[in-house]
Amino acid sequence: MRITTVGLDADDTLWHNETIFRLTQDRFRDLMSEVAPPEVLEARLAAVETRNLALYGYGVKGFTLSLIETAMELTGGDPPGRIIADILAAGREMLGHPVEPLPGVDQALAALSQSYRLVLITKGDLLHQEQKLAASGLGDLFVAVEIVSEKDASTYERVFARHGTGAAEAVMCGNSMRSDILPALATGAFAAHVPYALTWAHEMADAPKDHPRFAELGCIAELPGWIRSLA
Amino acid sequence: MRITTVGLDADDTLWHNETIFRLTQDRFRDLMSEVAPPEVLEARLAAVETRNLALYGYGVKGFTLSLIETAMELTGGDPPGRIIADILAAGREMLGHPVEPLPGVDQALAALSQSYRLVLITKGDLLHQEQKLAASGLGDLFVAVEIVSEKDASTYERVFARHGTGAAEAVMCGNSMRSDILPALATGAFAAHVPYALTWAHEMADAPKDHPRFAELGCIAELPGWIRSLA
Repeated sequence: MRITTVGLDADDTLWHNETIFRLTQDRFRDLMSEVAPPEVLEARLAAVETRNLALYGYGVKGFTLSLIETAMELTGGDPPGRIIADILAAGREMLGHPVEPLPGVDQALAALSQSYRLVLITKGDLLHQEQKLAASGLGDLFVAVEIVSEKDASTYERVFARHGTGAAEAVMCGNSMRSDILPALATGAFAAHVPYALTWAHEMADAPKDHPRFAELGCIAELPGWIRSLA
Repeated sequence: MRITTVGLDADDTLWHNETIFRLTQDRFRDLMSEVAPPEVLEARLAAVETRNLALYGYGVKGFTLSLIETAMELTGGDPPGRIIADILAAGREMLGHPVEPLPGVDQALAALSQSYRLVLITKGDLLHQEQKLAASGLGDLFVAVEIVSEKDASTYERVFARHGTGAAEAVMCGNSMRSDILPALATGAFAAHVPYALTWAHEMADAPKDHPRFAELGCIAELPGWIRSLA
């Protein structure tokens, strides 16, 4: 089997993301502790996020707006100004958060880039994802970067046709079964799941355990070896 | 001179955008009329937007956050809840605003698409720009869509290399001297300026009047004829 191209997810595959969202949610819980108990707050935030997803898409700015909207709903439409100020500050801090590659990422990507075309495929705010890639120091290892609004089978088909030799000769690697693995497999690509400690509920799906082109890896360091084993 | 590819800006070239931002600013001015006089409000909003541009980038979500931040600053950090609610509603309405091609756009694009590869090149929120293109009904006329975080010379060089036959055989058309015309000319492309009734201060620049590859058009209907005249 010839493999020419490796697609890599960014958030929670190359660097932390969900952890930063969870830390902001913890901060929001503390901020709102006199307004609502944690379980009410979390349920309401999840409902607001789900409702806004089609309008705001993925990323920090939409999340910040959803936090403000949740605070509005839980305070009868009149939150103290300090709550709004703290949410705005939290959003800005998320956008300016330092980016550090996860353990093993540098070495795995350096090894893979010797033999394959690496393509970064990620969702989120366009500018913020570009900034994170620049801050990560990994940018030069990729032949292309595709920031997309949704990761479905047609996305992978288009990206692997444009930057590689088609999905059948490509591997996709990421932490989300729903966004990285299942749609890539559906196009005929190989797919390697590298779990992250936390998964946003929206991204969960069952593993396609017996699929012949699927692998569950313990960490990204195993990726170069698995791809070699396909040959 | 052979022309193979035509790049088109989207906001205020193919459909209204700045008008919708201005309408929201008018609404914000009315909402804040008891808090600050219009000139103070506008100066403060412009300062907040400029400060946030590097962090938020272009688009409605960042603009909505900047409106909230401006309201915070002008109310001593404690705006009435109804002001926040109205800003959130205004942001949502901007994202859901109907999209209708400007006069002459349908015909001009239909004519151009017979002879040239059309590429949409636009800034803004990724998801929102995709949604606007889908709503416009113009999507099928483009061979490619590039939603970018900044329009500089390297952007045009990359896009015309990827989707065309290089900048020297491409025309860029848009309403912004700063983003559409000057950087496209800098790469060796031709550029046609089609003015819109309103221009965001950030996008203003002098016209390169005597540039041999530049044209100032009265409306987009003149674009096919001008491109034919280059041959």
